[in-house]
Amino acid sequence: MSHNTFGHLFRVTTFGESHGPALGCVVDGCPPLIEISPAEIQGFLDKRKPGQSRFTTQRREDDAVKILSGTMEKDGKLLTTGTPIAMLIENTDQRSKDYSEIEAKFRPGHADYTYEAKYGIRDHRGGGRSSARETAARVAAGAIARKIIPGVSIRGALVRMGEIEIDRSRWDWAEIDKNPFFCPDAKAADAMEPYLDGIRKNGSSIGAVIEIVAEGVPAGWGAPIYGKLDADLAAALMSINAVKGVEIGDGMGVAQLTGEQNADEMRKGNDGRPVFLANHAGGILGGISNGAPVVARFAVKPTSSILTPRKSIDRAGNEVDVSTKGRHDPCVGIRAVPIGEAMVACVLADHYLRHRGQVG
Amino acid sequence: MSHNTFGHLFRVTTFGESHGPALGCVVDGCPPLIEISPAEIQGFLDKRKPGQSRFTTQRREDDAVKILSGTMEKDGKLLTTGTPIAMLIENTDQRSKDYSEIEAKFRPGHADYTYEAKYGIRDHRGGGRSSARETAARVAAGAIARKIIPGVSIRGALVRMGEIEIDRSRWDWAEIDKNPFFCPDAKAADAMEPYLDGIRKNGSSIGAVIEIVAEGVPAGWGAPIYGKLDADLAAALMSINAVKGVEIGDGMGVAQLTGEQNADEMRKGNDGRPVFLANHAGGILGGISNGAPVVARFAVKPTSSILTPRKSIDRAGNEVDVSTKGRHDPCVGIRAVPIGEAMVACVLADHYLRHRGQVG
Amino acid sequence: MSHNTFGHLFRVTTFGESHGPALGCVVDGCPPLIEISPAEIQGFLDKRKPGQSRFTTQRREDDAVKILSGTMEKDGKLLTTGTPIAMLIENTDQRSKDYSEIEAKFRPGHADYTYEAKYGIRDHRGGGRSSARETAARVAAGAIARKIIPGVSIRGALVRMGEIEIDRSRWDWAEIDKNPFFCPDAKAADAMEPYLDGIRKNGSSIGAVIEIVAEGVPAGWGAPIYGKLDADLAAALMSINAVKGVEIGDGMGVAQLTGEQNADEMRKGNDGRPVFLANHAGGILGGISNGAPVVARFAVKPTSSILTPRKSIDRAGNEVDVSTKGRHDPCVGIRAVPIGEAMVACVLADHYLRHRGQVG
Amino acid sequence: MSHNTFGHLFRVTTFGESHGPALGCVVDGCPPLIEISPAEIQGFLDKRKPGQSRFTTQRREDDAVKILSGTMEKDGKLLTTGTPIAMLIENTDQRSKDYSEIEAKFRPGHADYTYEAKYGIRDHRGGGRSSARETAARVAAGAIARKIIPGVSIRGALVRMGEIEIDRSRWDWAEIDKNPFFCPDAKAADAMEPYLDGIRKNGSSIGAVIEIVAEGVPAGWGAPIYGKLDADLAAALMSINAVKGVEIGDGMGVAQLTGEQNADEMRKGNDGRPVFLANHAGGILGGISNGAPVVARFAVKPTSSILTPRKSIDRAGNEVDVSTKGRHDPCVGIRAVPIGEAMVACVLADHYLRHRGQVG
Repeated sequence: MSHNTFGHLFRVTTFGESHGPALGCVVDGCPPLIEISPAEIQGFLDKRKPGQSRFTTQRREDDAVKILSGTMEKDGKLLTTGTPIAMLIENTDQRSKDYSEIEAKFRPGHADYTYEAKYGIRDHRGGGRSSARETAARVAAGAIARKIIPGVSIRGALVRMGEIEIDRSRWDWAEIDKNPFFCPDAKAADAMEPYLDGIRKNGSSIGAVIEIVAEGVPAGWGAPIYGKLDADLAAALMSINAVKGVEIGDGMGVAQLTGEQNADEMRKGNDGRPVFLANHAGGILGGISNGAPVVARFAVKPTSSILTPRKSIDRAGNEVDVSTKGRHDPCVGIRAVPIGEAMVACVLADHYLRHRGQVG
Repeated sequence: MSHNTFGHLFRVTTFGESHGPALGCVVDGCPPLIEISPAEIQGFLDKRKPGQSRFTTQRREDDAVKILSGTMEKDGKLLTTGTPIAMLIENTDQRSKDYSEIEAKFRPGHADYTYEAKYGIRDHRGGGRSSARETAARVAAGAIARKIIPGVSIRGALVRMGEIEIDRSRWDWAEIDKNPFFCPDAKAADAMEPYLDGIRKNGSSIGAVIEIVAEGVPAGWGAPIYGKLDADLAAALMSINAVKGVEIGDGMGVAQLTGEQNADEMRKGNDGRPVFLANHAGGILGGISNGAPVVARFAVKPTSSILTPRKSIDRAGNEVDVSTKGRHDPCVGIRAVPIGEAMVACVLADHYLRHRGQVG
Repeated sequence: MSHNTFGHLFRVTTFGESHGPALGCVVDGCPPLIEISPAEIQGFLDKRKPGQSRFTTQRREDDAVKILSGTMEKDGKLLTTGTPIAMLIENTDQRSKDYSEIEAKFRPGHADYTYEAKYGIRDHRGGGRSSARETAARVAAGAIARKIIPGVSIRGALVRMGEIEIDRSRWDWAEIDKNPFFCPDAKAADAMEPYLDGIRKNGSSIGAVIEIVAEGVPAGWGAPIYGKLDADLAAALMSINAVKGVEIGDGMGVAQLTGEQNADEMRKGNDGRPVFLANHAGGILGGISNGAPVVARFAVKPTSSILTPRKSIDRAGNEVDVSTKGRHDPCVGIRAVPIGEAMVACVLADHYLRHRGQVG
Repeated sequence: MSHNTFGHLFRVTTFGESHGPALGCVVDGCPPLIEISPAEIQGFLDKRKPGQSRFTTQRREDDAVKILSGTMEKDGKLLTTGTPIAMLIENTDQRSKDYSEIEAKFRPGHADYTYEAKYGIRDHRGGGRSSARETAARVAAGAIARKIIPGVSIRGALVRMGEIEIDRSRWDWAEIDKNPFFCPDAKAADAMEPYLDGIRKNGSSIGAVIEIVAEGVPAGWGAPIYGKLDADLAAALMSINAVKGVEIGDGMGVAQLTGEQNADEMRKGNDGRPVFLANHAGGILGGISNGAPVVARFAVKPTSSILTPRKSIDRAGNEVDVSTKGRHDPCVGIRAVPIGEAMVACVLADHYLRHRGQVG
């Protein structure tokens, strides 16, 4: 990962600011003859889109994706041709809202100060390039990535919101779409509703943990030593806005395990193939998938756009206070679920092609 | 990161197996005219070297590093020339120990099975390429990286070993070298000694958490969106053997913070420059350093080489039991401290050069 | 260079087919605070645009470029912000011309057969991805690249068309814009006019040689061993459609020189700095610029779209004859001049940033 | 290509100076289970080695290659394991010859001045990193590359030495090993002998053209637009020391062809598969192989180490004269033949793996 591109054989470049004419991505290295469905891509984008419930920002963004290249209709199907697939999402609402305050002041916890420190200039309108709007392009790329590895199911869930953690014994994937939090534990979801309402009404915000599970990944994807599957997953997930921690399998918790507890034992499965009796490793050993589900988790910090004034400075170096009125996501972690899925899909598609390249 | 190379402008390629003739690295992109001290590089390697106390494996490895290229003596100094610096560490002890059992059986928790699944062949002797011995080359590269960013201090500490976590109020860097654990809390270190003795005597093992702190990093290093400093740190640390979780700043803990708690407030410092009143962000906002110390943490799993037999299979697919007699690290996390420092040094050196390239 | 991206720090990704909705590029790694002029970018595109004289194809393409990201207006200037600059050129004329013949038959000398052989599918409309229309995006990127290295002048000229070669003693840059061939020798240009008219009227085509000269490049850009300035120039120029040969300085001619003739001697210049008394090396020694003008040349083959039928096969493997009626460029080399300039500009901008990164 | 590494999936990093302790390479991305023969690798190195005849430098270099990693013996065979293959060539003769003159003065036509201008320091001993000795590592890598694409035959020939060009009608591959020039035309080789003797005795030098032919490359390797097979070949060949021009197929000569002459016509072959009736394209169309032999040519300049004094400057900026006494290659192009073969092998192996990755 470097600059605005990630991936090695399956390579995604994104561009665009929150309030420019458009944002989008170029998906390069996609195999040919893969059937693409614009409606399906749009479906993933809609999942990420704001305004789906009272718990996400009420901004109106259509996020209508347009494919500009790399595909061709044949026999009624839209097929990839092996050339780069550019996708565009126009910013329909670039109205001249008054951003003068944001221009002058650095919002604590945001990237305002660091962009300014690095570049000496920043597009402050709606966060510019650092806006989570950029992730719409990732989700579009992720929809293509899924088609490359059709046997792999990639699903995400919100497993913690602030104080509320799910009970894993109640995990039910079917619950994911029944609550506005992508939460797999119905009881926890019930508790999240009033909890997040309280936070939202206070103009506050709260963090979250998202878990992505990829099933159907065969043993052998990934590579030592710096092309490790888990290293690429860590980079991909850490690159999502507001993420501060990434875990594979038992994650930070392995520090408290003994060797006896941690080693996932193996037996012969019913089909004669090896099975793991546990999955502390999250499906990855030595940087290479082992055939068990790939399990990755990441923590999303609470948005810094809150009502309570925070101490800061302005561009001139003066001390100021900053508070954010108006619409915002009380828990940005919710919308990070489809984004995390997309990133995992892209990394897996890339490693699948890399594996096929080196090993055949 | 990809294949056996990481970095973009400051680029490190490592090679070598545990029991081959030698291992080493090629450090490419190092600026010219930087003074290198072989003794200093050796010093870092010695810190990582096994056999320093009864708490690390008693194997004898000299880890004597030899510089093959990229430097030149001038006026009594050894200077880099801008060309690739190859460093070699010969494997002095490649004796024909009996590895036949390890060859046939997959050790649970190790990379035996996944290497075999990927490549259809693996160098089983001492773990081959997946052995932690590879990290000696990283430490050598890290020693070079430090010289490129002389104003930056990079120090690591073991902050948790199994049940024992340090008390941050007792953090004292001076303690690091006074105990065999790189532990900054003298009291915790005292507790770790009998704790780890117990584990060692049982032939068991335990996990750990390591924290790396880089002070002196100016605001502006790193880059959106996929060249984020924290994304590269995450990949670099996750690529270390046995690491399963990576955190920046408050890490996974941000999920339990409110926006008010999480936003690091800013004021004007005594020198008129901005200062942060807290560092939940671990020195990185929007993927770019903010001038506060860069704080990264990672969790190392317990080694799977333990005395208690574990269920596994062999190459033929038969169910077997595996146990590991003899010398091993009861807590591999200890020796991960200098490795983590080296990885952070390499990432920072790379981002420094990239920043200088793009912004000047 | 790999996939649809080239460059290391200054990185250009292009996308789009001849007859898709749009084509464009993402310019990544551009330094911030550089003033960009859309009119100036458009000026370079217009130079490449077809239909400028009777000697280029009469197709109507507006090639109007639209900047989608990476810039911001400040104090009446359009400034780069350091984030990726996406540029879009919509294909205004995608009418459903009958391409069924081209779909079924492989045009000899074109990429029809190889795309089909590689991908099992190809966008045949107007050549799809292999159309020279893609080069419009390169020219837009090149216009940005020039702004990064303001002290460097990059100019191209057509120095041979079929049998007609220029006389270097008559080289006059002022002539370039006075004839429709970008030819620096007025007398040769006079001869080219009837010559090319004859070729055009016969429905034939002819090859050409283009020379690009970059003045103002300081000594020190480029790098051993695989980051050589000339190696990157060779790749960049060879990647232009229809190019089959690339030369630096005396190029293929060095094979006939003795060491005495070839070694560019050096003396102290009037300003005390080293000057070269000749430039057989084309400004590059050991892959690094030496301060003399960088001189690169490339040969463009005649387009294979000609009136005379040529033997070929169709997708079903049947033997067929192919001829191309209608509008085409009798000498595609003419329009390759601004494309060559753009590629050299991009390579130099990239190497400037890389040099600044490694050496400061 | 960038820094000291080239290739994308099959990736070669070289290191080392002419007079350091050792030089070598790391070959990364090699598929597993490929049988490697050290003797065979050594054979290619011996072909490049100086001192094979009176027409190459009389320096003694053993160039004995040692494999350090990435292979394993199994059932009496040395097999690749998929991990990086490091190869080392020790510099046996690093005696303290007096290089003080070379240190102070810039040899015209050499990289002395540009290395100094770039880095402010250079290893002057024997040319340091810019010495052709580095190419020994490439030849070793090329020997591995050949094993990855066993159906492909890669052979090189010297087709021009100064005034003497071969007659293609007399081309006979069997002649290559019968004369000291790798010349496929016996009669031309006869003429080269006295011609080069004259040049050698005068302490002069002469340029050459080398042609590499790869047979057995199937249609479909390579990729648009910046991953073109010919673009990568151009970079790879231009990166060889002293190369100033690269051609594919008819190369620079295409400028003088008409469309009728240039378009390689196609017919159905005896086996029903497409055949080309000519090969002006050198086996590559649109950056992708077409199944015809891949033909690449490159021009090597005469070495600048000659007896006749040349004007130059020294490090202090004073005007001086430089001449080179003693052993040198009167035609470095001869030894460039195995180097060119190696580079073509590496590029083809890389593109084979990339094709397999993207297309399967």
